[in-house]
Amino acid sequence: MTPILHEYTASGNCYKIRLTAAHLGVALERREYDILNGETRTPDFLATVNANGRIPVLQLGDRFLPESNAACWYLAEGSALVPEDRFARADLLHWLFWEQYNHEPNIATLRFWRRYVGEERLSDAQRGQIDAKRTAGAAALALMDARLAARPFLLGEAFSLADIVLYAYTHVAEEGGFDLRTYQAVGAWLARVAAQPGHVPMDDVAAV
Amino acid sequence: MTPILHEYTASGNCYKIRLTAAHLGVALERREYDILNGETRTPDFLATVNANGRIPVLQLGDRFLPESNAACWYLAEGSALVPEDRFARADLLHWLFWEQYNHEPNIATLRFWRRYVGEERLSDAQRGQIDAKRTAGAAALALMDARLAARPFLLGEAFSLADIVLYAYTHVAEEGGFDLRTYQAVGAWLARVAAQPGHVPMDDVAAV
Repeated sequence: MTPILHEYTASGNCYKIRLTAAHLGVALERREYDILNGETRTPDFLATVNANGRIPVLQLGDRFLPESNAACWYLAEGSALVPEDRFARADLLHWLFWEQYNHEPNIATLRFWRRYVGEERLSDAQRGQIDAKRTAGAAALALMDARLAARPFLLGEAFSLADIVLYAYTHVAEEGGFDLRTYQAVGAWLARVAAQPGHVPMDDVAAV
Repeated sequence: MTPILHEYTASGNCYKIRLTAAHLGVALERREYDILNGETRTPDFLATVNANGRIPVLQLGDRFLPESNAACWYLAEGSALVPEDRFARADLLHWLFWEQYNHEPNIATLRFWRRYVGEERLSDAQRGQIDAKRTAGAAALALMDARLAARPFLLGEAFSLADIVLYAYTHVAEEGGFDLRTYQAVGAWLARVAAQPGHVPMDDVAAV
């Protein structure tokens, strides 16, 4: 049974899942949605794929799994990408929750607004959040930079699912207006992650 | 080794961990911080407990685990609160990620702004987000309501960690300005969760 990825290729949240699958050698069938034209808010999508109206969703037979990091965990649990030690597993999850709370809503949202929506089309409420998101996104990158200055990967010596998940939006942070030259340890880590066997780039649509 | 919970009692994110521990019969040592007076942003806290400057953090010996849902997972993995089936485990995690992305930033933040900060002390940027957070919080409660209309607990028949995590801020959503009478299945579920053996209320500071 080949898992089906309901996705939007340019989304880092979808790329995470493709990158996890590529590292594991798992083939995915892919279904593309135009999120800018509401294709994930149709009655059929909401009733069948995800009541929350968002991609990515990983479909396994007749079961649907929303939330990018849950899908990555589903694919990776039991592999070398998820440690066996109880504390290390929870520490990996801590990075995944941190990514969705402190990193993605700032870095990915600013990238989406700048590159895909266009600043001139933002609402006043969105425009009013730009400064706070810029500050919070920079703080997230600084936290990663301090962490990665002392160890090669987020959990320590071993490449893990935490690196895959954080790579997705960090490596395109400049599209959100963040200057990655400021974060030298992050830059070196990005190169280490991209050099891992099995790595695929974000736009490699035929990779898996 | 008794785990130490670095916390602020009124935070639902901290309550989740106490409630998980109570269900498991795990004792916690508790250390309170005044988040309104910056006690989690001191140089010592940032260097030792959490570089992200937030509570809760679960301390296990000399190791520190930030992010509420990672701490709940650490305590609950291997117990009946976390299913053994691979899809069900990932589905549980999907609810935990959904909570941190779609529920907590709306419902918990509005509660915090209204009850603990005070609307008159909000910045213009915060005030500009109130309408969007009210809409998104209502959508989150409606999604839970539709889900819970058809089954007793979020994963189906069995009470799980997903119910504990979502209970924390849902049961105080009215403090954020949400009218829980609108969501009847959520109301019935809240009563079911509170009736589980081992349940402790949010303000029961001597519970564990």
